[in-house]
Amino acid sequence: MVDVKPVITKGLEGIYVSESAICKVDGTAGKLYYRGYSIEEIAEHSSFEEAAYLVLYGKLPTASELSAFDAALKESRALPKYVIGIIKGMVGKADTMDILRTALSAMSAEDKEVEDMSEAANLRKSARIISAIASIVATTGRLMEGKRYVKPNAKLSHAENLLYMLKGKKPRSDEARLLDVMMVLHVEHSTNASTFSTMVAGSTLSDIYSAVTAGISTLKGPLHGGADRASLRMMYSIGSPDNTENYINSALEGKQKIMGFGHRVYKTYDPRAKVMHKYLEQLSATGTEEVKNLISIAFRAENMMIEKLGKTRGIWPNVDFFSGPIYVQIGIPIDLFTPIFAASRAPGWCAHMIEYWRDNRLMRPLEYYNGDIDKEYVPMDAR
Amino acid sequence: MVDVKPVITKGLEGIYVSESAICKVDGTAGKLYYRGYSIEEIAEHSSFEEAAYLVLYGKLPTASELSAFDAALKESRALPKYVIGIIKGMVGKADTMDILRTALSAMSAEDKEVEDMSEAANLRKSARIISAIASIVATTGRLMEGKRYVKPNAKLSHAENLLYMLKGKKPRSDEARLLDVMMVLHVEHSTNASTFSTMVAGSTLSDIYSAVTAGISTLKGPLHGGADRASLRMMYSIGSPDNTENYINSALEGKQKIMGFGHRVYKTYDPRAKVMHKYLEQLSATGTEEVKNLISIAFRAENMMIEKLGKTRGIWPNVDFFSGPIYVQIGIPIDLFTPIFAASRAPGWCAHMIEYWRDNRLMRPLEYYNGDIDKEYVPMDAR
Repeated sequence: MVDVKPVITKGLEGIYVSESAICKVDGTAGKLYYRGYSIEEIAEHSSFEEAAYLVLYGKLPTASELSAFDAALKESRALPKYVIGIIKGMVGKADTMDILRTALSAMSAEDKEVEDMSEAANLRKSARIISAIASIVATTGRLMEGKRYVKPNAKLSHAENLLYMLKGKKPRSDEARLLDVMMVLHVEHSTNASTFSTMVAGSTLSDIYSAVTAGISTLKGPLHGGADRASLRMMYSIGSPDNTENYINSALEGKQKIMGFGHRVYKTYDPRAKVMHKYLEQLSATGTEEVKNLISIAFRAENMMIEKLGKTRGIWPNVDFFSGPIYVQIGIPIDLFTPIFAASRAPGWCAHMIEYWRDNRLMRPLEYYNGDIDKEYVPMDAR
Repeated sequence: MVDVKPVITKGLEGIYVSESAICKVDGTAGKLYYRGYSIEEIAEHSSFEEAAYLVLYGKLPTASELSAFDAALKESRALPKYVIGIIKGMVGKADTMDILRTALSAMSAEDKEVEDMSEAANLRKSARIISAIASIVATTGRLMEGKRYVKPNAKLSHAENLLYMLKGKKPRSDEARLLDVMMVLHVEHSTNASTFSTMVAGSTLSDIYSAVTAGISTLKGPLHGGADRASLRMMYSIGSPDNTENYINSALEGKQKIMGFGHRVYKTYDPRAKVMHKYLEQLSATGTEEVKNLISIAFRAENMMIEKLGKTRGIWPNVDFFSGPIYVQIGIPIDLFTPIFAASRAPGWCAHMIEYWRDNRLMRPLEYYNGDIDKEYVPMDAR
């Protein structure tokens, strides 16, 4: 039999792996919908709690549904002592995403429903996971500064409480609103690499903690969630707005990848980046001097990139490009950017897992073997 | 624009995601090759250490290469105190795979080369990961019995030391050889779900600990690594050999899935199961009474299944079906079966990750949106 080389779709580009009613990404029109509602509407009207409910349950909640979901989230905010111990043991030695991956994985020991694969149990576990990730992220930031764990405050919203557990004091309402919007914008984005990884892990019928741990493992990389850190680092390297043109030109000449631009699906302006842009315009008047400087750099880099690569090659600013200055304004350290992305994306990971399990199929692709065959074993002394 | 529904390949069946020179699975002929050498040859001649080297480095090692690799493995056998603490904290509360997932994830904090993405560093990290997983597995089994952590013994081989750290005494040579063969048979198997998950996680350029943590998360499920536990549980449920026909018949009538049979790629006898079969034939004379009984049940179930489903529908015994009686003979508790699978597969996960990174492409498939669109946001009081 002749071995005909098959078509290999590296990166699975263009391959449809599932049907879903969670999220529509229209990469040509630059539109994004959560459960049919445009991201612009959701970012304007919904809190993180409401957006998470919408994505998980498929509908906007009534007042009592939202209140029950909110209560479930609040119940799971406190971290068990041994998980705080894990964070303490890794802080200063490990990347914040490595800490989050480990601590969330450890949380499964606290959950008596881990192996219950009913949809109701998985929805309950989703709320616990969403809260746990937020608390782990805040506590990691807290312990990184050598400070003590802050107990959650049930009077605060999800975003407020995250900032409270991070900083040890109640946040200003404008800061909490900025974090809330950022989290809403990151709740869900179809089969991006981390969500897909979640589905691959869950497709063996492992469990939702295993699946989300795989998602966190995947989000860490600079080609995915890690891009927000890389973008801000670039802005700091540029330093002053007047240096932007020089920097970008020499980066492009050196064929360096500019982080925060280009997207596998969007071939136009990322609608989430557009929402952020509006907030950045406000902050360019009201922000700190550092933030104003970063925004000037960001806007000049954006204009250049759109002229040079956007209009001609479809490489536009994406969601990761503008995150930095907003997080800096809220006082979030750069090492927490990607963990906060994880805290925001947790509802999307869980929603996809739960939906995929309704019609589960083990993810088992093929690879084409291009090596030798039927080699003869050579004993050690003849090698 | 009319939205034409695309072809959806659920489970990625038949999709080629990469080229690889690591492993050839010929599902029609029932053949498996590691780097071109047939599994029968490798299982007969190679230790786990040699098979791991072969898969990672692409060639059979010379005596000095094997000795250097063995020394690297031995150096990384001892677990840091805080990782033993994590295992202790989770034992009795969490599944053994949840413990392994967490403890291996935590090991990244000990490794100063985590973020070094050079191939040389990733090969060094692979040896550390292979050793760490084995020690975590043994220590988990040890602490599950309420006993104390056993320090590794550098005079012992990889399989011997795993049993030594598990049981606190040097294993008999026939026991160590059985475990060694079992581990060799599980070293690598192309893009199975856990290896694929490793590649998805790593494709964002995260790091090799993140990638392997995703692999462990994926292996846990009963449709993948968890099948070996399910198979043995079925044998215990059958209880006596004479009950086999009744049990299998009623299971098939009830359309129950019989764990340990059928495979996405093999449509004939799994060559690994064939190697195990030979060892089981020996054990059916030399094994304990419990093991002899299990083997009788396994062989009767095997014959029935081949007659009923193998010859007609291509559903044959796979690698997971025969593991149970062998592990029982070595004295490995059922909850360690899947963790030992992970310890065995670690070289395959690492080899695939390292190979994929040479020509990396972000894994980002698509999904088809089948929900509503452009829904109007309804304020809370109008819901």
